[in-house]
Amino acid sequence: MSYPHRHLLGIEPLRPEEITTILDLAEQYVTLNRSSAKHSEALAGLTQINMFFENSTRTQASFELAGKRLGADVMNMAMQASSIKKGETLIDTALTLNAMHPDLLVVRHPNSGAVDLLAQKVNCAVLNAGDGRHEHPTQALLDALTIRRAKGRLHRLSIAICGDIAHSRVARSNILLLGKMENRVRLVGPPTLVPGAFREFGVEVFDDMREGLRDVDVVMMLRLQKERMDGGFIPSEREYFHRYGLDAEKLSFAKEDAIVMHPGPMNRGVEIDGEIADDINRSVIQEQVEMGVAVRMAAMDLLARNHRARAQPEGVMV
Amino acid sequence: MSYPHRHLLGIEPLRPEEITTILDLAEQYVTLNRSSAKHSEALAGLTQINMFFENSTRTQASFELAGKRLGADVMNMAMQASSIKKGETLIDTALTLNAMHPDLLVVRHPNSGAVDLLAQKVNCAVLNAGDGRHEHPTQALLDALTIRRAKGRLHRLSIAICGDIAHSRVARSNILLLGKMENRVRLVGPPTLVPGAFREFGVEVFDDMREGLRDVDVVMMLRLQKERMDGGFIPSEREYFHRYGLDAEKLSFAKEDAIVMHPGPMNRGVEIDGEIADDINRSVIQEQVEMGVAVRMAAMDLLARNHRARAQPEGVMV
Amino acid sequence: MSYPHRHLLGIEPLRPEEITTILDLAEQYVTLNRSSAKHSEALAGLTQINMFFENSTRTQASFELAGKRLGADVMNMAMQASSIKKGETLIDTALTLNAMHPDLLVVRHPNSGAVDLLAQKVNCAVLNAGDGRHEHPTQALLDALTIRRAKGRLHRLSIAICGDIAHSRVARSNILLLGKMENRVRLVGPPTLVPGAFREFGVEVFDDMREGLRDVDVVMMLRLQKERMDGGFIPSEREYFHRYGLDAEKLSFAKEDAIVMHPGPMNRGVEIDGEIADDINRSVIQEQVEMGVAVRMAAMDLLARNHRARAQPEGVMV
Repeated sequence: MSYPHRHLLGIEPLRPEEITTILDLAEQYVTLNRSSAKHSEALAGLTQINMFFENSTRTQASFELAGKRLGADVMNMAMQASSIKKGETLIDTALTLNAMHPDLLVVRHPNSGAVDLLAQKVNCAVLNAGDGRHEHPTQALLDALTIRRAKGRLHRLSIAICGDIAHSRVARSNILLLGKMENRVRLVGPPTLVPGAFREFGVEVFDDMREGLRDVDVVMMLRLQKERMDGGFIPSEREYFHRYGLDAEKLSFAKEDAIVMHPGPMNRGVEIDGEIADDINRSVIQEQVEMGVAVRMAAMDLLARNHRARAQPEGVMV
Repeated sequence: MSYPHRHLLGIEPLRPEEITTILDLAEQYVTLNRSSAKHSEALAGLTQINMFFENSTRTQASFELAGKRLGADVMNMAMQASSIKKGETLIDTALTLNAMHPDLLVVRHPNSGAVDLLAQKVNCAVLNAGDGRHEHPTQALLDALTIRRAKGRLHRLSIAICGDIAHSRVARSNILLLGKMENRVRLVGPPTLVPGAFREFGVEVFDDMREGLRDVDVVMMLRLQKERMDGGFIPSEREYFHRYGLDAEKLSFAKEDAIVMHPGPMNRGVEIDGEIADDINRSVIQEQVEMGVAVRMAAMDLLARNHRARAQPEGVMV
Repeated sequence: MSYPHRHLLGIEPLRPEEITTILDLAEQYVTLNRSSAKHSEALAGLTQINMFFENSTRTQASFELAGKRLGADVMNMAMQASSIKKGETLIDTALTLNAMHPDLLVVRHPNSGAVDLLAQKVNCAVLNAGDGRHEHPTQALLDALTIRRAKGRLHRLSIAICGDIAHSRVARSNILLLGKMENRVRLVGPPTLVPGAFREFGVEVFDDMREGLRDVDVVMMLRLQKERMDGGFIPSEREYFHRYGLDAEKLSFAKEDAIVMHPGPMNRGVEIDGEIADDINRSVIQEQVEMGVAVRMAAMDLLARNHRARAQPEGVMV
């Protein structure tokens, strides 16, 4: 198997075959999770710590379940906003946890780059569960697995990422991954929410939703991140839905068998029409959640194998 | 064994022999919990998620311990009030969790009927840990087990349920269970807190505490739920205790060997005198807590067996 | 092995050989924790409940990891401030948890003596994780293990405890332990923060930091507990650092190989200079954290053995 990395900090450093390695192993975990004995001992004897400096019920739950199902000793740390005022304190917190000898550290942090910084200070494998507007690699991997299962392949697809791209680490990680796998990526949204800088990734940019969706295989909607819009233009929800919300009429411009994705949680009636979200013939939104647990199990399993290979021999206890 | 249900949503749909099935299995778990190796593998390989939309330290702890002692992978989700503003969101949350393939979902929710609604949307077994003023079935089951152990039987007993019945799902589930098992149930409390609608269950209603307690086998006190009294009459604690608080003098009207119960947490000096609560010859309040863990272990074990019987064959993992 | 106690409530009742017993077992757990399979089954089948009435991310994490690595079923209870208004309620909470048959109860409480009181009401082993200004025995034990490993012995050392001694249970437990092991303890700090009552323990007291550190083997800094200073003198941080903060110049008065300790979390630039804290030749602050997990594993293992020896025979379950 080919996954030579110490950490999973982002999609950027991954080669296509490494992405495929993770997805292939995740397929096995999909099978396990659908069985009546969804537990393995792949991480038995290992310690996983989840450090979430931003609240995220679903992502934390997904990582927690993934670790528990793999037999790890899992601990959640609710990091209070107060303990992250100074850069020093993040490092001190990391060093303190590191001294407790975790094997896997899952970190979400509001600042871009914070997880990379932290990974330099610790001995264990670090998984980025989202840092600022930078990366959210397991989200891109679960989206990739969902697409591969629905479309039978993960290359030469036409994929529209729609909505609030400017504030989205999900978009950034997906653009990187889908580009590496040789897909055609389009960004669709109001110019204020689609930064020009993304053009360097070789994507096409559309202001008009109908044009942007024309003949695509995959429609990937994003959550409108009002909580991250500091100052600047904030669209009214009604106006936003009218122009960029996915409804049956706009979706009709995509291919007939195009799938609809959303990373959740959804703002129904803002970026997506509730009926589209619930249409089991088009929407793979629940499958994305399912793939999330499997992809995280695969990533932690691979990192633990690497970590174990580098670690000291087993301790002997009476 | 006879427990053919997919869920445990309330006492209402249960037949007497199904109640007996749960209590009999719970007896075995009482023995296990008192041993020096209080762990089984009955739920090994299964995932239990606790979703509490209302805080409840003790009920959540009881379910959590029950699951861990049965070897399940247990995850607690603290659901914020903000995420339950719309009915849609409850369903979206349920569907998201469902996609993670839990086997057991334990739910407490402030709205009557919310747990039933949720159970219709998911594939796993749902246990109602209390919904609005509707049902709290595991509380009624643990009360039943406590009574059966103290009195040697669970039928033809005279049982007084006292206090704030109007706001109590505990009372409602107990009235249903004790009625099914052919006991004589009396409701005792101020008319404002004992809704007339309960008369349809074939209970007797008393306004006077001494009359209501005369010759009963069991005195079941309820917590005064000030937090649920919206508008309406709120009695002063002093006046309430004088008229409806259980003290030695009022208790003397019950049978000499009558037991005293309370679902906790107690308001000492409001609905119950502290000395009565601590009297180990009369009070079985601590035993109720102990039975709570055992009853929840039994209920989850039975539901998991049914769920497993319907599920796909075991997954094979390297 | 010699550890005949039911609980670990403080250092005060321990004999020197009992302290040595804990530290010797902890050494084995240091080895386990550094291995690639850091999990034992020493507490398998046992239930550990962590009840923290005061927030403490790192101490709770240390106990949680310790229990999970020993195979216990571990449950955290976040006790809200509101539930500790009355002494009654603490006891009721304790009795409720006790009825769930935990084997180990780890308690932190803001009031001195609260943990002892609680230990009298329950059947299980109680570990004091810090009570008011009274004791924090596992902190003193982890400090002792750190010193013993760094200095090769735990007796006839000269140890300076510096800073806010008045508000510190850490200082009190350390003074007791280090005295029992026949070390020379000095207290160094402003007179307002070094209560005269401590002189009864046979310590020397210094107002001047340089004098106090002269030729010591160990410099133990304390956190400035501003949050516990009710009324009274609160020094400015700048002035405090100038007179009592540990920097290279003041440290030069200690022995050349003196080690620097801090229980964390640190106020960098207040009681300790950041460069000293990070100097791997002098600072053993990260090792203290590591020893913390090992010492807690050892203490819980010993208590569980005693508890098991007194308990009923194993339950039999199908």
